[in-house]
Amino acid sequence: MLTTEPWVFVAILAGLVSVGVAVWLYVWVNRQDAGSERAQEVASWIRDGAQSYLKRLYSALGLLAIILGVVIAIVFSFDIEHLGLGTVSVDPGRGLTMALAFIAGSLCSALAGYMGMTVAVSANVRAAHAANHSISRAFKVAFYAGSVMGLAMVGLAVIGMSTIYLLTGDPEIVLGFSFGASALALLAKAGGGIYTKTADIAADLVGKVEIGIPEDDPRNPAVVADNVGDNVGDVAGMGADIFDSYVASSVAAMLLGVSLFSGELQGKYILLPIILCTLGILASLIGVRFVRVKEGGDPGRALNQGTIITCVIFAALATGLVLLGDYNLGVLWATLAGLTTGVVIGFTSDYYTSSDFRPVIETARVSGSGAAINIITGFSYGLVSVVPSIVGIAAATLLSYYLAELAGINGVYGVSISAVGMLAVSGMIVSSDAYGPIVDNARGIAEMAGMSQTVVDTTDVLDAAGNTAKAITKGFAISAAALTVLALFAAYAEVVGARGVELVISLRNPIVIAGVLLGTATPPLFSAITMLAVTHNAFDMIAEVRRQFDERPGILAGTELPDYATCVSLAAQGALTSLAVPALMAIVLPLVVGIVLGPEALGGFLGGSIFTGVVFALLMSNAGGLWDNAKKFIESGMHGGPGSEAHKASVVGDTVGDPFKDTAGPSLNTLITVMSLVSSLFAPIIAVFHLF
Amino acid sequence: MLTTEPWVFVAILAGLVSVGVAVWLYVWVNRQDAGSERAQEVASWIRDGAQSYLKRLYSALGLLAIILGVVIAIVFSFDIEHLGLGTVSVDPGRGLTMALAFIAGSLCSALAGYMGMTVAVSANVRAAHAANHSISRAFKVAFYAGSVMGLAMVGLAVIGMSTIYLLTGDPEIVLGFSFGASALALLAKAGGGIYTKTADIAADLVGKVEIGIPEDDPRNPAVVADNVGDNVGDVAGMGADIFDSYVASSVAAMLLGVSLFSGELQGKYILLPIILCTLGILASLIGVRFVRVKEGGDPGRALNQGTIITCVIFAALATGLVLLGDYNLGVLWATLAGLTTGVVIGFTSDYYTSSDFRPVIETARVSGSGAAINIITGFSYGLVSVVPSIVGIAAATLLSYYLAELAGINGVYGVSISAVGMLAVSGMIVSSDAYGPIVDNARGIAEMAGMSQTVVDTTDVLDAAGNTAKAITKGFAISAAALTVLALFAAYAEVVGARGVELVISLRNPIVIAGVLLGTATPPLFSAITMLAVTHNAFDMIAEVRRQFDERPGILAGTELPDYATCVSLAAQGALTSLAVPALMAIVLPLVVGIVLGPEALGGFLGGSIFTGVVFALLMSNAGGLWDNAKKFIESGMHGGPGSEAHKASVVGDTVGDPFKDTAGPSLNTLITVMSLVSSLFAPIIAVFHLF
Repeated sequence: MLTTEPWVFVAILAGLVSVGVAVWLYVWVNRQDAGSERAQEVASWIRDGAQSYLKRLYSALGLLAIILGVVIAIVFSFDIEHLGLGTVSVDPGRGLTMALAFIAGSLCSALAGYMGMTVAVSANVRAAHAANHSISRAFKVAFYAGSVMGLAMVGLAVIGMSTIYLLTGDPEIVLGFSFGASALALLAKAGGGIYTKTADIAADLVGKVEIGIPEDDPRNPAVVADNVGDNVGDVAGMGADIFDSYVASSVAAMLLGVSLFSGELQGKYILLPIILCTLGILASLIGVRFVRVKEGGDPGRALNQGTIITCVIFAALATGLVLLGDYNLGVLWATLAGLTTGVVIGFTSDYYTSSDFRPVIETARVSGSGAAINIITGFSYGLVSVVPSIVGIAAATLLSYYLAELAGINGVYGVSISAVGMLAVSGMIVSSDAYGPIVDNARGIAEMAGMSQTVVDTTDVLDAAGNTAKAITKGFAISAAALTVLALFAAYAEVVGARGVELVISLRNPIVIAGVLLGTATPPLFSAITMLAVTHNAFDMIAEVRRQFDERPGILAGTELPDYATCVSLAAQGALTSLAVPALMAIVLPLVVGIVLGPEALGGFLGGSIFTGVVFALLMSNAGGLWDNAKKFIESGMHGGPGSEAHKASVVGDTVGDPFKDTAGPSLNTLITVMSLVSSLFAPIIAVFHLF
Repeated sequence: MLTTEPWVFVAILAGLVSVGVAVWLYVWVNRQDAGSERAQEVASWIRDGAQSYLKRLYSALGLLAIILGVVIAIVFSFDIEHLGLGTVSVDPGRGLTMALAFIAGSLCSALAGYMGMTVAVSANVRAAHAANHSISRAFKVAFYAGSVMGLAMVGLAVIGMSTIYLLTGDPEIVLGFSFGASALALLAKAGGGIYTKTADIAADLVGKVEIGIPEDDPRNPAVVADNVGDNVGDVAGMGADIFDSYVASSVAAMLLGVSLFSGELQGKYILLPIILCTLGILASLIGVRFVRVKEGGDPGRALNQGTIITCVIFAALATGLVLLGDYNLGVLWATLAGLTTGVVIGFTSDYYTSSDFRPVIETARVSGSGAAINIITGFSYGLVSVVPSIVGIAAATLLSYYLAELAGINGVYGVSISAVGMLAVSGMIVSSDAYGPIVDNARGIAEMAGMSQTVVDTTDVLDAAGNTAKAITKGFAISAAALTVLALFAAYAEVVGARGVELVISLRNPIVIAGVLLGTATPPLFSAITMLAVTHNAFDMIAEVRRQFDERPGILAGTELPDYATCVSLAAQGALTSLAVPALMAIVLPLVVGIVLGPEALGGFLGGSIFTGVVFALLMSNAGGLWDNAKKFIESGMHGGPGSEAHKASVVGDTVGDPFKDTAGPSLNTLITVMSLVSSLFAPIIAVFHLF
């Protein structure tokens, strides 16, 4: 089953180059000056906390990977499709291959996350130190550190997918790789989300509210956990999330390539997504080089320029590929439709969360009338923000479908390519995104280590740019995940169809309706479980902080260091324990629906979960970002500034928004991807075994 | 086209009896003693305010009805189905009939609402006065007044539907009647929702927070508007909402009867929903007689008993009908499945909003840690509360479908009958529900008129029972609307199918996916517009209250009466002005989607709007009820009682919940019903004219 397609080798090579550059940047960042001893000490607390979290996370993941790997190895050893009464045909080789692909997917995503986290917790103090000299130098340290994550991620993903395809020639095995990456993403994203907000809320409630000490005060035992949380949620979590969509969109297109093409064209179109990813890596490598800030320049602008340049280069390369490689023009239109939509949705989500525009300004303005009005207004704008993104996703779906059909190629394949086109530039998008928490941490270290006001001011400017990048990435990630799961949905139907069951997922069929209804309830339930876990765990951490203050009065006096490690460990343990139910739910629910109600109901279930999943993800991410920036807007001196009634109200909104935007909202992407992948992976079995 | 079916005459007779009993109760309530002059004066402010609102509402409705009536008269005069090039056949008679049916639907719903509101604002003071004597007497006044609304509503609905069917024999004309009722419901429900919460929030913010005077203090110029709002939102609004679902579910079943049956059976099954409604009226008339409270008895229990007795009687009558009338047994199973699900969902929604169970208790407990934790926890439980109701709706759909199919009758018709079965007992459900705002108002009057503590305590007990009834009705109304729109959705597909366009609403078709996506965004947008209208209008009213306090210092001193009428008028005008956009949206959006993207996309659009509509309606209604009761639980002395930090936090939650549960959440039912009816009504046109 070996493939000899030369493009596979090009892809692996590009992946290796990307990882190589990431390693080079990693080394470069670590060689920068880490500054004063005090700063290094503060940074070491965060670094140690991050390491301890990663250790726990990867242990949990290891366990999960082994259990799921064994299940997969056993299940896929049976030749289900030809399972007749009395004849059981067993092929342990296929089962083992699938299990290995699954574990490889988890490992690649974990490795990218590990590199990204490690460099982030080393870059934060270095960026802070560099801010002593110039903004351009500090920006460079932070952005290059962010690029380690971006480039490692796309590189490892392409190497993994290409190698598996090279060795097996079977996209269904690549699906195993994708499922491995997704299972990891679910734990990393939801776990990181619970972790970071547990620490954040506990640190705020016990520190700012109860004791009255400022944010990032080193006397607060929860403050290190809070800073670790920024890395855990925003670097490792977001990276794993986009890794997951990146691989899943390619796999969906590959699977559709198998069903929708035949003869010579088949191999060509199965490989196309990997080639597009390869071109995206090249574009990102070039784009990263263009991201620079001159003295007095605007770092936000630099990041946006980098994104635009990467997109333009990628578009040019894709055009060249289609014209020279004799591909159908439809795939070019689909690629461009996806790419444009991704960028447009990213920038519109900035509209709803940036203090330059009406939603944040208006929410800040009404905050003077109390927390309730702040919440109602922010929530309402969050609801409105769903509309443009949903319209964008619908437009991308229709455009890529009909333009592909008009050009004479299957429209469903076009939709899947639009998702690939959107995600191809992920290398650059993740680089900008990972920059955010690094400068956020740099700011925290500057404050905790008592650095000069210049440093704090410079890191403030860098941080503001990071927030915009973060808003754009969240919009991008959600819409990319939406298109990806729509493609996966189509792939699921084709995989079932290939087993001789013509799948009609008609909304006029009551069993499909029942499936859709059950699907719509899943994202709300998942969100609720993760958010209740945040408040529950925060109470445990508050109890621990109170215990430390009671037993060791030297902490508040500033003569004794608090025990940061216990808080870090509490947050980590709490997050991972709370994850058991939602993680199990994501994997087991689609199987139960499929086996009890059948493959058509499962199709409806996936559809339903996508619909409410995307709506709630957009609502929660945007409302959360809006409340955060409304608070910052008031803190900048508007409507009475810090300490005013408006400010108190906006703090309530910000705290409500915390688990919205960093725990529940963005985990929904991963939830729907995992459920779609589980369904596609087990589709051959469900097509044969089901009650209804 | 006259029908001579004897059952039609029985139905009209039952409707007349029901309306007759309602009028008799109306007279009875008005003959009760209205008590002291002071109490009568307070009551007269509320009554005048309610009258002034109704006048404005019905003027707006009149205008809308005339415009839509003319459009309908013109559009339906054309024989679209046979529209060929060059031959235009015109039948003004049909257009006029449709327009008249539409206006009759609006009028019947308006008349029921008018009777309900008028008796409610007359019963409140009488119930308060009766509370001087005994709880059983006060309960009787309030419940009988509530029954006026319940019985008038079902009576007028059945009279309207039966008469139109008698005269035309055409269920599509009955659809016009249903659309008229729905258009009114949209304005009454969403308008009432905006009105009541504008007044409530303004009265609280300026009274309790700014000036520091208690709730229901007659010195507050907004307090009358607030009391009027209870009637406007909860009596007229909820009544119109259930009237709307009640008629729509019957029409859906009638339309399906046309498509799915032929020969002799056709007439029989077209008429079945009207017969079931007739039996429901009889059951409700008997049930209402059983609702009594002995001295020291529990009014909540009495209401629940009434509901259960009504359901049992209805089930018995339906069984008799099916057996004696030689109907297929499948319709009995479907009826019972719907009825049981409605009751079960109603009672489970009580679980999430009653202070006897974990969600409210837990939310109250964590409130000590601040408003943000209260909001996060309540919102999370609201998300969880979606699950059992959705599972119930899915179960009712599957059960009624498969049990009908097993019994040898079309399953889709079974689903539509399950909605009818659920709603058949609406007479009793609405009676219990309308009781709530009457005793709430009675309590307010007792407070404002300075009645004795015994009266306040008695009305408190009556009020608590009203809250439970309200929670049950909301769960019931949402699930009934969900089943109704699923039936309407099926009817829409059949109406299009009857025009020779076989409608396949497959989730594998990108244009359907695009339709679904656009549909999912509609309920969030509608919710946001109505909630933003509440805060916007509340600010206007606050400005007016401040103006009165500034210009006439005698008001706060208690020597001068405030100008209640201006506040009432501001709330009414604001609510009706804010409604223009969302009302237009509900009518225009489905037409635009249908005409631009075609009937299949419109099918997807309706599906998408149902999915997120039901989820958000359940989330917002239940979370709002939960926050309300968590506050009341703390006010009862738990967690520090009134004035504690926990109480302050719970007040924020309650205020956020106000527009959730009384404005946005419950209006979504009506939104999705209106959009489904518009689609079914214009389906013959969309089947012929569409771009894609």
